[in-house]
Amino acid sequence: VPKDRFGVMACSVARTANIVADPWTLLVLRDLFLGLTRFDQFTRDLGIATNVLTDRLATLVDAGLVVREPYQDNPVRHDYHLTAAGKDLYGVVVSLMAWGDRHLAPEGAPLRLHHTTCDHPTTPVVTCSHCGDELDADDVAPLPGPSGRATPGTRVIAELLADRPPT
Amino acid sequence: VPKDRFGVMACSVARTANIVADPWTLLVLRDLFLGLTRFDQFTRDLGIATNVLTDRLATLVDAGLVVREPYQDNPVRHDYHLTAAGKDLYGVVVSLMAWGDRHLAPEGAPLRLHHTTCDHPTTPVVTCSHCGDELDADDVAPLPGPSGRATPGTRVIAELLADRPPT
Repeated sequence: VPKDRFGVMACSVARTANIVADPWTLLVLRDLFLGLTRFDQFTRDLGIATNVLTDRLATLVDAGLVVREPYQDNPVRHDYHLTAAGKDLYGVVVSLMAWGDRHLAPEGAPLRLHHTTCDHPTTPVVTCSHCGDELDADDVAPLPGPSGRATPGTRVIAELLADRPPT
Repeated sequence: VPKDRFGVMACSVARTANIVADPWTLLVLRDLFLGLTRFDQFTRDLGIATNVLTDRLATLVDAGLVVREPYQDNPVRHDYHLTAAGKDLYGVVVSLMAWGDRHLAPEGAPLRLHHTTCDHPTTPVVTCSHCGDELDADDVAPLPGPSGRATPGTRVIAELLADRPPT
């Protein structure tokens, strides 16, 4: 299986999934959002094997989501920080959390979020950029985009969209 | 590695990731949201091996996100539909898409979304349930939730949250 099998599909779900659709990767991102920065913090928090963590951090650095920076000389030590592109994944991570809170947390949520801007408890809601209402699959119609085409990953979808007006 | 390693963590990101954090699983969900229902539609659309598709559909059915139903007798044939819990993942899937459109689609988005309710093109935005503003990682503070505790996956996080007021 080619490593970029998903990355070359004409689909933004596939391309994003190619980088982040892995439980360890998402948990490292979660920890970065929660303020952890160091290799040994990730290993202690997650119980992740060091070779696996090294691999996932390399994936995140290669994808431009995380930067590795020296924070100490003699000996040199490095820590990890989200880039702007990495921070832009916040909505994905908290949307996964919100779904888990609704469906997989019968004892109540493990963690709550407080929106400091409005000073209220918050639950992430995925909304329409135009009207602000929550997006429901039944109320959204897919249309072909400028780079839409048939590739592995979109062969039937491309046919379905072919007779709709381009955007 | 135990199969439910992520499912038993006191973390809703980990529990959700345990089910959906796999590129093929996310693409099957995407196809279900786009209206595909049949095994042979998924294989033709995705170029996925039949044994892999069988495995991912079983995962989705076992997790209660998808139901398998007969649509024809003699011979009996089945198709696949999202449950209410599965449909509730729409925000996760379109948030992944929106990130890919912003960061991994230099030729423009492969697919556009039209919000039929307000009759405008839409981009998914992850917003605060209270004030409606977009959620930015820098403006959200994590607090301990009712089921928060130290498990593998939350050992450092539990310490960080221990001195904050419970919710």
